[in-house]
Amino acid sequence: MFRPHFIGIDLGGTRIKAVVVDVHGAVLESRSVKTHGDGPDAWAQCIANIVHDFEARLGVATGMGLAAPGLASPDGRKIAHLPGRLKGLVDLDWTVFLDRRDAVVVLNDAHACLQGEHWVGCAKGMRDVVLLTLGTGVGGAILQDGKVRRGRLGRAGHVGHISLDVDGPPSILGTPGSLESAIGECSVVERCQGRFRSTQELVAAAHAGNAFAQEVWRRSIRKLACGITSLINVLDPEAVVLGGGIALAGEALLLPLRQELDRVEWRPGGQQVALLTATQADFGGAIGAAAEAYMKRNT
Amino acid sequence: MFRPHFIGIDLGGTRIKAVVVDVHGAVLESRSVKTHGDGPDAWAQCIANIVHDFEARLGVATGMGLAAPGLASPDGRKIAHLPGRLKGLVDLDWTVFLDRRDAVVVLNDAHACLQGEHWVGCAKGMRDVVLLTLGTGVGGAILQDGKVRRGRLGRAGHVGHISLDVDGPPSILGTPGSLESAIGECSVVERCQGRFRSTQELVAAAHAGNAFAQEVWRRSIRKLACGITSLINVLDPEAVVLGGGIALAGEALLLPLRQELDRVEWRPGGQQVALLTATQADFGGAIGAAAEAYMKRNT
Repeated sequence: MFRPHFIGIDLGGTRIKAVVVDVHGAVLESRSVKTHGDGPDAWAQCIANIVHDFEARLGVATGMGLAAPGLASPDGRKIAHLPGRLKGLVDLDWTVFLDRRDAVVVLNDAHACLQGEHWVGCAKGMRDVVLLTLGTGVGGAILQDGKVRRGRLGRAGHVGHISLDVDGPPSILGTPGSLESAIGECSVVERCQGRFRSTQELVAAAHAGNAFAQEVWRRSIRKLACGITSLINVLDPEAVVLGGGIALAGEALLLPLRQELDRVEWRPGGQQVALLTATQADFGGAIGAAAEAYMKRNT
Repeated sequence: MFRPHFIGIDLGGTRIKAVVVDVHGAVLESRSVKTHGDGPDAWAQCIANIVHDFEARLGVATGMGLAAPGLASPDGRKIAHLPGRLKGLVDLDWTVFLDRRDAVVVLNDAHACLQGEHWVGCAKGMRDVVLLTLGTGVGGAILQDGKVRRGRLGRAGHVGHISLDVDGPPSILGTPGSLESAIGECSVVERCQGRFRSTQELVAAAHAGNAFAQEVWRRSIRKLACGITSLINVLDPEAVVLGGGIALAGEALLLPLRQELDRVEWRPGGQQVALLTATQADFGGAIGAAAEAYMKRNT
């Protein structure tokens, strides 16, 4: 008996994640493999093989979505802009490459993460949400009135590139003193003056009572709180969702962050914004890509 | 012959502005009067009189909207939150007070301004826009996918309350080093160390070659540019619209602002965001309130 199902792919610089889900977003199969090679010959062919393998056993999927870094084109057929990474991805038309009858829906990976959280994760049933992915860089996405918004060029949700220090050094996108440089893994060695090599080491040292580490971490959290407050005042969400590797720090992140938010968050009539951590961490992007295909099919 | 028309009211702390518009947003009549008194007895009765007067000559309006400072309730019947100003406004049900058969649509004044610009002003036909009103304070609104978004509590678009300096003093909403304190009229005396009393004086002095004034103004503009860049990266609009009294500075504002944006704005594939000034300055809020009523009638 044929059961409608959707394929979601999350193409990252490090790993390719793939899922097959049913119409409720339940994962029927998943796959996670390393991203190999410098051109589409390697990783695009790997994706083609995964899709072929999925469909050989489960039948042709009702729809397919693909999430990747960069800005998706307005027609959702490809990544239109991504400087310097995953050579060959820009302008690759996935519907043509995979020889699909129905269009493959292509979207930004952070947008897909929020789509996934909205479909089956911590943002289920919500209308207005901001996602921050705290990893090597800081990315994100915004949900307003129940839809992930892409903006004009597909750039909406680049929350790592808000300025918290107009005299600070420029981010990779040119923003002075960005939120990304305040909390992203990419800047941790610099923030620590070389004394720790990762956020994990920094947090462990702070936890062990190292005063320098405590001060650096406190400062990073203060900036994150100010960035979140800015986003709350602009977007007025019901929840802020934290994803990415740094969110795995759990209470070491959340406890001081809540304290800072108590200080700076505007809470009209005492109403505060929920602070949540992403629940679909590993396959959220892939599930969100499948969600996008499902929704396209059903609207 | 009856011609459908809509009444829009913009209730401000200083003036009440009122318009009657047709279905194309063309202004048939307008009125601007001082806001008197400390309670609804004065200003609410004044609005009732204006409405009565309009309808006595033009017939009963097809719909009516009212814009005011503060956060509008989710059902759009009243202002639900506004601390310390226009006593008596919070929770006043305008449909009941004005004894209207059809509900009066109540919305935030900055949201109304953007609605007005979108209907008949510089943002006509656009899908994604950010408005900043540069006045005593700094307010604003966001249009995404063709709709002014209110968020969960009606607070979306409080763009004056993004942090540009995490060590700065708190704004009236608690945001450290806010955009409002960087460019709003409310902080100009402090920014000038008391040497000028208004942005107009500051800009005039800078224009006349006063080096101190030039430095203060340059610094204010730099912060504004960083704030706009942050909003662009989060919302990805096709245009940023500047309104409010400070926008009347024209090229004295726009020329250095464009130069700063050239330095900090992310322009994927060379595409930059249009920088516009509001065209409906005086009656934009009232027209936008009427637009809201018109749209409610037609959806």
